[in-house]
Amino acid sequence: MARRSKAVFSIGMDLGGTKIAAGLCRGGEILKKVVVPTHAAKGFDAVIEAMAGAARAAMGDTDPAQVAGVGIGAAGQIDPRTGAVLYAPNLRWTNAPLGGSLSAALGLPVRVTNDVRAATIAEWKFGAGKGLDNFVNIFLGTGIGSGIVLNGQLCQGATNSAGEIGHICLDPEGPVCGCGHKGCFEAFSSGRGIENEVKRRLQKGAKSLIRDEVGDDLDKVTGHLVGKAAREGDEVALAALAKAGRYLGLALANVHTLLNPDRILLGGGVMALKKFFLPDARAALHRHILPVADRGDDLLGEARFETEAVFLGGAALFA
Amino acid sequence: MARRSKAVFSIGMDLGGTKIAAGLCRGGEILKKVVVPTHAAKGFDAVIEAMAGAARAAMGDTDPAQVAGVGIGAAGQIDPRTGAVLYAPNLRWTNAPLGGSLSAALGLPVRVTNDVRAATIAEWKFGAGKGLDNFVNIFLGTGIGSGIVLNGQLCQGATNSAGEIGHICLDPEGPVCGCGHKGCFEAFSSGRGIENEVKRRLQKGAKSLIRDEVGDDLDKVTGHLVGKAAREGDEVALAALAKAGRYLGLALANVHTLLNPDRILLGGGVMALKKFFLPDARAALHRHILPVADRGDDLLGEARFETEAVFLGGAALFA
Repeated sequence: MARRSKAVFSIGMDLGGTKIAAGLCRGGEILKKVVVPTHAAKGFDAVIEAMAGAARAAMGDTDPAQVAGVGIGAAGQIDPRTGAVLYAPNLRWTNAPLGGSLSAALGLPVRVTNDVRAATIAEWKFGAGKGLDNFVNIFLGTGIGSGIVLNGQLCQGATNSAGEIGHICLDPEGPVCGCGHKGCFEAFSSGRGIENEVKRRLQKGAKSLIRDEVGDDLDKVTGHLVGKAAREGDEVALAALAKAGRYLGLALANVHTLLNPDRILLGGGVMALKKFFLPDARAALHRHILPVADRGDDLLGEARFETEAVFLGGAALFA
Repeated sequence: MARRSKAVFSIGMDLGGTKIAAGLCRGGEILKKVVVPTHAAKGFDAVIEAMAGAARAAMGDTDPAQVAGVGIGAAGQIDPRTGAVLYAPNLRWTNAPLGGSLSAALGLPVRVTNDVRAATIAEWKFGAGKGLDNFVNIFLGTGIGSGIVLNGQLCQGATNSAGEIGHICLDPEGPVCGCGHKGCFEAFSSGRGIENEVKRRLQKGAKSLIRDEVGDDLDKVTGHLVGKAAREGDEVALAALAKAGRYLGLALANVHTLLNPDRILLGGGVMALKKFFLPDARAALHRHILPVADRGDDLLGEARFETEAVFLGGAALFA
């Protein structure tokens, strides 16, 4: 785009179900950051207005001619060619023309990708994946997703669903996943998977500090309580986290055996409890990986960015 | 290479433990094919001599200036940058300078890749993968391997072991694989895996037509006998093949969920028995795949080439 040849800035945005973050970025540098509520219940137009407002606030008095564009990482299923959000349950959107609408509101080019891919781009360009041509960035949160970079290119897949690592099946007889199938990686090793494992153990009558907190109301079991109990040495919490680690290691081994990446990066909120599951994950990784693909501890790394990853990666869509 | 700008032919070679095949090729067309024994026991120099002889015989009186080069698909672990065979148990080679030695013998450029990748290139350029930017070509033989094409590029991996799908773990408590680990895909669904499943059932005393053929000598169980028994409705053979199919389907589902390829192609000798395991494989594929990645029967295809795949793909390294 010749008319933007002097553009040195770009705006990155993280569109989540509760918050919108916008950042004025130059390369990996965040010059200004704005966070506003999403108010998804007010509908699509209101969200676009909130996003445009956040983007303008992040730009401040920057000359728009110096802004290459706005790159968005959004939760949900995205069509990066059109900038449409095909399906985003947390926003209650189906086939929503996010890119086109925001572009019209701001008078700037807009590109959209999903949040995990945006975070992967941030790690690749500026973070723990910098310089790597082959890596996988796994996000361990309430659910599990990933971004895959091979041969120096981000994998989109034939129908744009590449990277859905949370739903590879690790045990056909395993616990039921949110997707309806049994034994998905996510059903074992996500935040929700760990909570559910704790609930199953409590239902069987296991004694636990968590029981003292929630009584008979197992809906009150949260990742926060599991983490607190683990730090106090609670056996139910520790066993659930160790099991999550073993299945994480199995998934990591299979990805390494199949794709032979330079490294797999781990990030997401569940990593706050890493000391309780990473040792089991590493042991399972080395137990299951094809020996010729095993290069020791270098196989695993940690993502560098936390909350900034999605909008930094969005901004990098115009870098 | 300007001096070869008039080159319209290339030589493809398939280097196996027992046979060497060489083909004079133009695009996907095989103009002449020569097969000679490998005689691996005679040592590296003798194999190079046999290969050079086969290549010369395939060239016939073709002007060498019209031959762009010799591309080899070889069983074993290859370094495609140097053309060395790092490890090939069936040839008893370690760090063998295959590419350099054959190039010196023939006075032609030589490139080397592994046999499964060569076969994948043949499918990609001339066969069932033609026009696809994202596909996986799985070879179901004595063992199981694959070639992976994503974003229009063949995946080599960080240390050149991408595609080792035979050793993804499908059940940590499963049968022991040749690699020493438990529950590898190959331990369930390869020719050897199927034979071993039959042997386990016979050891437990199951009645079978195969028992009538081999008596108490289970070493005599072969894929040929299993196929013959399956065609006669033998329950042990059918159960072993159905189980191989279920695990094949699980592996296919996981690859589709993770990589979202256009298609997965299946090839190799085990496919001769496909009617006994593909229905179970398809059912398991659709049972385990992430729903959003499921596009029905288009997900699976069959490789077009059989024995020619490896040297056709080798020749295509210079296409």
